Amino acid sequence: MASPVRARPAGVGRNPESPLPSVPGASQEEIRRQNLGAVLRYVHLHGPTSRAELTSRLGLNRSTIGALAADLVASGLVTEEAPTTARRAGRPSLVVSPRSDRVYARALSIDADRLRAARVGLGGRILDLREVARPGGMTAVDAVGPLADLVRDMERSVAADALLVGGAVAVTDTTCEADGSIRIAGVDESLGVALEAEFVAGPGFVAGDLADIAGLAEHIRGVAAGIDDLIYLHGDLGISAGIIVDGRLVIGHRGHSGKVGHMVVNPNGLLCGCGSRGCWETEIGEAALLRHAGRDPGDRAAVAEVLGAAAAGDRTARQAVEQVADWLGFGVANLVNVVNPDAVVFGGSLRDVFIAGADTVRSRLGAMPLPGSREHLRLEAAALGRDAVLIGAAELAFDKLLADPLNVGVTGQLGADDPA
Amino acid sequence: MASPVRARPAGVGRNPESPLPSVPGASQEEIRRQNLGAVLRYVHLHGPTSRAELTSRLGLNRSTIGALAADLVASGLVTEEAPTTARRAGRPSLVVSPRSDRVYARALSIDADRLRAARVGLGGRILDLREVARPGGMTAVDAVGPLADLVRDMERSVAADALLVGGAVAVTDTTCEADGSIRIAGVDESLGVALEAEFVAGPGFVAGDLADIAGLAEHIRGVAAGIDDLIYLHGDLGISAGIIVDGRLVIGHRGHSGKVGHMVVNPNGLLCGCGSRGCWETEIGEAALLRHAGRDPGDRAAVAEVLGAAAAGDRTARQAVEQVADWLGFGVANLVNVVNPDAVVFGGSLRDVFIAGADTVRSRLGAMPLPGSREHLRLEAAALGRDAVLIGAAELAFDKLLADPLNVGVTGQLGADDPA
Repeated sequence: MASPVRARPAGVGRNPESPLPSVPGASQEEIRRQNLGAVLRYVHLHGPTSRAELTSRLGLNRSTIGALAADLVASGLVTEEAPTTARRAGRPSLVVSPRSDRVYARALSIDADRLRAARVGLGGRILDLREVARPGGMTAVDAVGPLADLVRDMERSVAADALLVGGAVAVTDTTCEADGSIRIAGVDESLGVALEAEFVAGPGFVAGDLADIAGLAEHIRGVAAGIDDLIYLHGDLGISAGIIVDGRLVIGHRGHSGKVGHMVVNPNGLLCGCGSRGCWETEIGEAALLRHAGRDPGDRAAVAEVLGAAAAGDRTARQAVEQVADWLGFGVANLVNVVNPDAVVFGGSLRDVFIAGADTVRSRLGAMPLPGSREHLRLEAAALGRDAVLIGAAELAFDKLLADPLNVGVTGQLGADDPA
Repeated sequence: MASPVRARPAGVGRNPESPLPSVPGASQEEIRRQNLGAVLRYVHLHGPTSRAELTSRLGLNRSTIGALAADLVASGLVTEEAPTTARRAGRPSLVVSPRSDRVYARALSIDADRLRAARVGLGGRILDLREVARPGGMTAVDAVGPLADLVRDMERSVAADALLVGGAVAVTDTTCEADGSIRIAGVDESLGVALEAEFVAGPGFVAGDLADIAGLAEHIRGVAAGIDDLIYLHGDLGISAGIIVDGRLVIGHRGHSGKVGHMVVNPNGLLCGCGSRGCWETEIGEAALLRHAGRDPGDRAAVAEVLGAAAAGDRTARQAVEQVADWLGFGVANLVNVVNPDAVVFGGSLRDVFIAGADTVRSRLGAMPLPGSREHLRLEAAALGRDAVLIGAAELAFDKLLADPLNVGVTGQLGADDPA
């Protein structure tokens, strides 16, 4: 809320004393590494780009871009080719393209009721995707074995010179324990150990919350591209959020931010599995929609039916949607007053609920947040669908490569890494 | 909530495509500027520090530190002296100290019912402080004139070689409009124009929300020093928060983050001035405490009396405190589930409410947030008291100096800037 009068003061709010200031003289080698990363990141995000455009976009001179591109070609991360159609006279600028076919990451997802594994190529292209059901009661740790099988299966058909650069797994955030309490599922040491056992020869895995990772994907490649203050709201069995502030994911002190499903919105509401009463999840979760529509709250498949019936004019279904949409807007309004985002993106099963009840959601958001926060607010349906999680996980996995392209490229040989 | 298995992946969540990557080769001049800033920032935050300690803390070599210190001495920003007590044999390491007496910022605060101006020396020392009442109905813009008078008054006694490096103003965040709606007060263009008119010859002013700025002060120099994920909760006429995530202040898309007083916590509660029903402010604001205690809700002076009576065992007062503390814990629990902070700091009038009702607040926070977020949570009373706002404002003002010490130091001569 520090609204600068002249301009946002540089560095305000940054901890002035991060362990060591990032001062120590940047070496030539470090600068080269950063520049390589910048070029690779650019084509990773924007696709094939001419040297001329890279020169202007990155503020580096032509000969530097030429040398960097040559290094990236030599390590097999990009190709350089003459453009297929030269628009102007004179020698055309070479086009730098990410080698999506060769350089890839393993992206895994442990959803509420399914397990998915994908190979995602540099540039964010899903090259291959396998999926199995996640049986009820299977822990995140137990899911690692079946996921590894999917990966092995996919990698049988991978070319000999393919370059694996890392992997990441997205885990749906909460799980009900036997005692009824809700704890963070699996994103802990034991999951790390299990991943390491299966993928020991490969580059390290990172794990993250599913809503965080899907939000990151929408922020990088989806409907929120270019939006730096963002709440991505994910509906699944539960409700959670990926919150992006000033272009950075809010992780929280121990990685538990965004548990918005357990904000209490209705102190007189239903008892939640977490022990509180009236959690947002009890008002906007899939079970709430089904309950209002007179369906079995545990029958996830019926969610689509209820939304379809509402669209077709069924009165009970319509009222169920309205009731959920009203609480959806209510809770988002609270979040908007806390975070003042530029946009709220609705994903997972909340995407369809938002689309079905958009007027009701908008009506709440047109009234409840303070004017300063509601006036510029954008509400968006997620664009990447079910792929968001895998694309986001791949972005996590690519991060190390993009920070230091030549180093990671050399070590990630598939040959040395094949778990079979 | 992305809880990394191995380690927090570097750069995760950072927008991979901030306008231009910060790659372009850092020049020698830039590196020197950064290093000067690092040395000055270190002594600004930690006080007098030996060259030897600076060498080890900043990871720079001895001769570099010597040269940087000499530059800072030459521009009058620090002094270098032999330590008063040499502990070891051999030539003692010179001690670098900020020139708090000479280098200062103007820190202004527009509180709900008072206006304050301070001169804060480098190192965060309040050198001089003036205060007047803010009459009811005075806008933030109208407050600039009286604040300028306070500044002029203070600066009459300033030494001829004093170096003014900037100023900042903290503004209490919301104000009731005539129509009952609540809008952000004054932190807008017109305030900027008014500040410029009064302080035109001086370095630019930045303005920010009072809770943000007080939170920043607690984060930099107060009870939350070293804590990078923090909610600072400020009670005044209203309730707002300064939210710090990963060491950075959450500003929000348009600077309106932290309006937590208008989260609706009790849908069946009282009508709030903002038009919603059951805003957190209606349950934990000063007026709520006074109402429960059977006092005039508008009589701010009675808040201390109620708290005193509660401490002395008065039953009605005690129950009023409990009721407010319960809702205080309730709302904080919601915020904790959203942000997963390391600590929550209670400031302004909420500091005393928290202290009086700590058991009740803790009881809510021991049950409501999910285990992952509540297990490590620290609850703290603010340490800097009323000075927090002025110290925080000075930090904003010092930021430019610390980013580029020699440049700012040269231009901020008081002689050229005296508004008289």
